[in-house]
Amino acid sequence: MSRIAYVNGAFVPIEEARISILDRGFIFADGIYEVTAVLDRGLIDNKAHLARLQRSLSEIKLPSPVTMDELTRLELELVRRNGLTEGGVYLQITRGAADREFAFPKGDVTPNLVMFTQARQLVDSPDARTGIAVKSVADIRWKRRDIKSVALLAQVLAKQEAVAAGCGEAWMVEDGNVTEGASSSAFIITRGGAIVARPLSNEILPGVTRKAVLALAEEENLTIEERRFSLAEAFEAAEAFNSSASGFVMPVVRIDGKTIGNGAPGPLTLRLRELYIAHARQTATVSV
Amino acid sequence: MSRIAYVNGAFVPIEEARISILDRGFIFADGIYEVTAVLDRGLIDNKAHLARLQRSLSEIKLPSPVTMDELTRLELELVRRNGLTEGGVYLQITRGAADREFAFPKGDVTPNLVMFTQARQLVDSPDARTGIAVKSVADIRWKRRDIKSVALLAQVLAKQEAVAAGCGEAWMVEDGNVTEGASSSAFIITRGGAIVARPLSNEILPGVTRKAVLALAEEENLTIEERRFSLAEAFEAAEAFNSSASGFVMPVVRIDGKTIGNGAPGPLTLRLRELYIAHARQTATVSV
Repeated sequence: MSRIAYVNGAFVPIEEARISILDRGFIFADGIYEVTAVLDRGLIDNKAHLARLQRSLSEIKLPSPVTMDELTRLELELVRRNGLTEGGVYLQITRGAADREFAFPKGDVTPNLVMFTQARQLVDSPDARTGIAVKSVADIRWKRRDIKSVALLAQVLAKQEAVAAGCGEAWMVEDGNVTEGASSSAFIITRGGAIVARPLSNEILPGVTRKAVLALAEEENLTIEERRFSLAEAFEAAEAFNSSASGFVMPVVRIDGKTIGNGAPGPLTLRLRELYIAHARQTATVSV
Repeated sequence: MSRIAYVNGAFVPIEEARISILDRGFIFADGIYEVTAVLDRGLIDNKAHLARLQRSLSEIKLPSPVTMDELTRLELELVRRNGLTEGGVYLQITRGAADREFAFPKGDVTPNLVMFTQARQLVDSPDARTGIAVKSVADIRWKRRDIKSVALLAQVLAKQEAVAAGCGEAWMVEDGNVTEGASSSAFIITRGGAIVARPLSNEILPGVTRKAVLALAEEENLTIEERRFSLAEAFEAAEAFNSSASGFVMPVVRIDGKTIGNGAPGPLTLRLRELYIAHARQTATVSV
């Protein structure tokens, strides 16, 4: 059975899911996206994803073609039509198709909305059992990293550099400090047991999973330090991990070839992963 | 008659010119583009555009699906099929359609090549007669601006800010100095008659028209200073102009509301525009 995608009101086989070559997402990266994890057919942290979507859209003055309730209904319908039990729903809104001009198109140009699913083992993930290796790369991105736009070429190049070096993720470094992963938020845990996360700003994406993990850590009375941390400090950390919608809490066991802790996923990291997965299941959206 | 576009080997009406929503240009801005001006059905400075295309592709390790000779043949064929006498040919190469993963797709994924034309009055341009107003904006782009990628959201926002302020172009400013226009190279001419252009680096796009204009100025024994210039210096300049593939040499008569020179296109600017248009006509590509 072919996967079913969604394009502007129609559910179609993904092979037939197409957009105009004049679409401004294709030509100008003039679009916003979100990825929501799916567990047991439910949408994980979806309200937070849609709130971030609305904020990103607003920052680039791009109106959503549908309400957030309608979007949730469409996400659930797409999950249902694909029989998806575990994986993710990807959605992207672009400023629509118009004759090519850098400035926003004048007149009635309808934004395009596309969605598709990806089936993946999220909970029982081999990477989570072993932990992943990370490679540091220079953070060469633009200055509005808080906007979740599809202008992702820097992240693509960062991830490719990591994968080519046998690593599972790239950590981007600016002025000696880690900003975030190519597609995740970066955390370290000090030898004193403090969870360290870079504070939110225009310099990083406000991670939905990051926020949930920090809230869970706080509920557990764990020590949290929201501050910048250097790559040098990360090398000396007791544990390290990434958070992301589809990776949940992902142990990092090696950075630039240097072993973190004893080279196995750390105990606090694994506890946070369990806490997050339990939270995810409990709070999943299964209806509008 | 509908415009004819080109998509991976097929010439199709532009309304039917579509690509997969899984295309990496659409999802990741993982693609490179070029725009070549057309005058009298000939391609202007096309060899330099294709050389820059090859360099950009190489920088992101994206192989071209066709040779540069074949690309030239396709550009000319598209111009012919559209009966285009004056305007531009747009071409874009992306890393193709593959299930969404940040790293380059493994296995046989063929890059996508799309092209379309835009009819425009380039020589007899109202903007060139009056000159345009420019608005300065912060340059918030990534650090590899020498790569002509489709990750153009920062440029879109810059241009939109300029247009909303009644201006024709945005000049991007970093550390007090002008880097370039949202879709053009920026120049000033000092009261001493020196043409000032920022030197090439990763911080700006190596403008094809910029290069040709500087070569023509040198042939004319005009004084050229390749150095950074500040916005403050631009306000005090005798003349200012932009260069771009479709704007050629475009007089700038106002920056942030401040009149440049006497508020009309400057004499040296107009001379460079004439020289460039003559050069363009003489060197246009009309066959492979």
